[in-house]
Amino acid sequence: MGHGGGGTLSAELMREVFAPAYGNAVLAGLGDSAALSLGSARLAFSTDSYVVRPLFFPGGGIGDLAVNGTVNDLAMSGARPAHLSCAFILEEGVPLATVRRVAQSIGAAAAAAGVTVVTGDTKVVEAGHGDGVYLNTSGIGLIPEGVDIRPQRATPGDVVIVSGPIGMHGIAIMSVRDGLEFGSEVVSDTAPLGGLVEAMLAVTADLHVLRDPTRGGLAASLNEIATASGTGVALTDSAVPVPEAVAAACGFLGLDPLYVANEGRLVAFVPREHADAVLEAMRAHPHGAHAAVIGECVADHPGMVVARTGLGGTRVVDLPLGEQLPRIC
Amino acid sequence: MGHGGGGTLSAELMREVFAPAYGNAVLAGLGDSAALSLGSARLAFSTDSYVVRPLFFPGGGIGDLAVNGTVNDLAMSGARPAHLSCAFILEEGVPLATVRRVAQSIGAAAAAAGVTVVTGDTKVVEAGHGDGVYLNTSGIGLIPEGVDIRPQRATPGDVVIVSGPIGMHGIAIMSVRDGLEFGSEVVSDTAPLGGLVEAMLAVTADLHVLRDPTRGGLAASLNEIATASGTGVALTDSAVPVPEAVAAACGFLGLDPLYVANEGRLVAFVPREHADAVLEAMRAHPHGAHAAVIGECVADHPGMVVARTGLGGTRVVDLPLGEQLPRIC
Repeated sequence: MGHGGGGTLSAELMREVFAPAYGNAVLAGLGDSAALSLGSARLAFSTDSYVVRPLFFPGGGIGDLAVNGTVNDLAMSGARPAHLSCAFILEEGVPLATVRRVAQSIGAAAAAAGVTVVTGDTKVVEAGHGDGVYLNTSGIGLIPEGVDIRPQRATPGDVVIVSGPIGMHGIAIMSVRDGLEFGSEVVSDTAPLGGLVEAMLAVTADLHVLRDPTRGGLAASLNEIATASGTGVALTDSAVPVPEAVAAACGFLGLDPLYVANEGRLVAFVPREHADAVLEAMRAHPHGAHAAVIGECVADHPGMVVARTGLGGTRVVDLPLGEQLPRIC
Repeated sequence: MGHGGGGTLSAELMREVFAPAYGNAVLAGLGDSAALSLGSARLAFSTDSYVVRPLFFPGGGIGDLAVNGTVNDLAMSGARPAHLSCAFILEEGVPLATVRRVAQSIGAAAAAAGVTVVTGDTKVVEAGHGDGVYLNTSGIGLIPEGVDIRPQRATPGDVVIVSGPIGMHGIAIMSVRDGLEFGSEVVSDTAPLGGLVEAMLAVTADLHVLRDPTRGGLAASLNEIATASGTGVALTDSAVPVPEAVAAACGFLGLDPLYVANEGRLVAFVPREHADAVLEAMRAHPHGAHAAVIGECVADHPGMVVARTGLGGTRVVDLPLGEQLPRIC
């Protein structure tokens, strides 16, 4: 199960199985989406499958998750998300009403994100070979002139900004998961981030890195950026916005909020001279109202993420091995 | 299960659930891929999930099927297939060697088709909620200037050409399916058709319709074209190339080869004045060596496919309700 968790085991599968099999330069970029040229256009292209359990959870469902997830992967390369595909794998016997509810949430989420679902597919597998509904969305968008956002561009001096409180999606899912149900008022943060990114790019085209910290949480995203860029990341633990209910649930479950999945947040590496203006633009946007500076990119400890704790000490924030709980997206 | 078979039930799901939920003009085109404009580029964009059972079969496996299937959907709009995404849903416990074998076949098939796999995703579900490996591929390609290939363009007078013998993929799968195994020398026809389409477009940019008759076979494709264009299709039964082994297996299983899936064939609607030259160009290409004229587009019986039988009679070739056997792709 760990190979699907977005941590060390996922990275291993990528490095040892997929990369050698497909081997090409674009894939090696390892961003949330691929940036490519087609004719005269610069495009972002991304794909994700969704196997979240349960299908509906506080704050959302598999349909809006699938739309927002792929929209956000596109936005993380600075692209304006434009078109989505949507493919269903249905388990025999799933009620038509469930399929309809998922399809309607896809339509509504697409409208909210300003994208169109232009192509699709439906397969059905026998009962006992699926779990109601699995979805895949892929998406394409145009990358504006002069924008070059990718993990390799993190540079010592960059200010690290997160767009809002973390850990909400993962805790919302866990709170309703069979065998784990606990009372919690946390709802998923699932949201489309294309508009927020557009507002940030209006300040400067020179954003260095954007990433949405989904599986593996903020810890996995920061580690991937540190590895790809060969720089270090210095976090200030106390600056990371963790809602009280998330902190309580994490305490109860023995989890570190840095490793809990988000679906409507981004982390940005911004050149120091633009950081204040970018932060201000983020705070003026509904999806960035609680944006906060959480650290900086440093030349020390290249490839590593280190957090300053409240007691004046430091701790290494490792790449997780897998996801703490499978199937959260 | 029938809702995934590419026949009447699939069409119903599309018309009554997905179309109203997503409602937009591009989707309404109902081609194998969506044709859209992004910046100054005219793109084709397509997606398909693959749940074929077993994972490996005579002539291919899920990996090359997933590459060729999406490459062919792009080619059916006249696009030059360029880039693919590839997303895995793995069942917990599937051997790493199986994943590696599938990944390698994807890499090899992509190289053969001249496309690159630029982005991907891996999810893992618990044992008993999948079936080894499910794949999704999505793809994009550029549509050349002046090309406008879609089902609506079928016109009375068009010559209907099929690129080779039919029914081979479906029979190859059935021959190795648990509980159905029978001796057969039929291997899947899975193949990328981008090169063949390019050779046809070199004769004339004015091809009216291209379609790869996968789920639901030639019968489903011809019915979809007749419905979309409001024309009739008149087939000559004896002209349809059916390999002897496919005919024998169909007799044994009680199937009509017109309804059996293909994965390396296309059917083309070509203006009469270009038909001879296009047929000649097809026969000069390895994937079209046994191309044959099988009928014509007519003003009679709009929306219907009618076959002339060997005895001088006619029969209506209906859209199938579902696939005769689920999970053939």
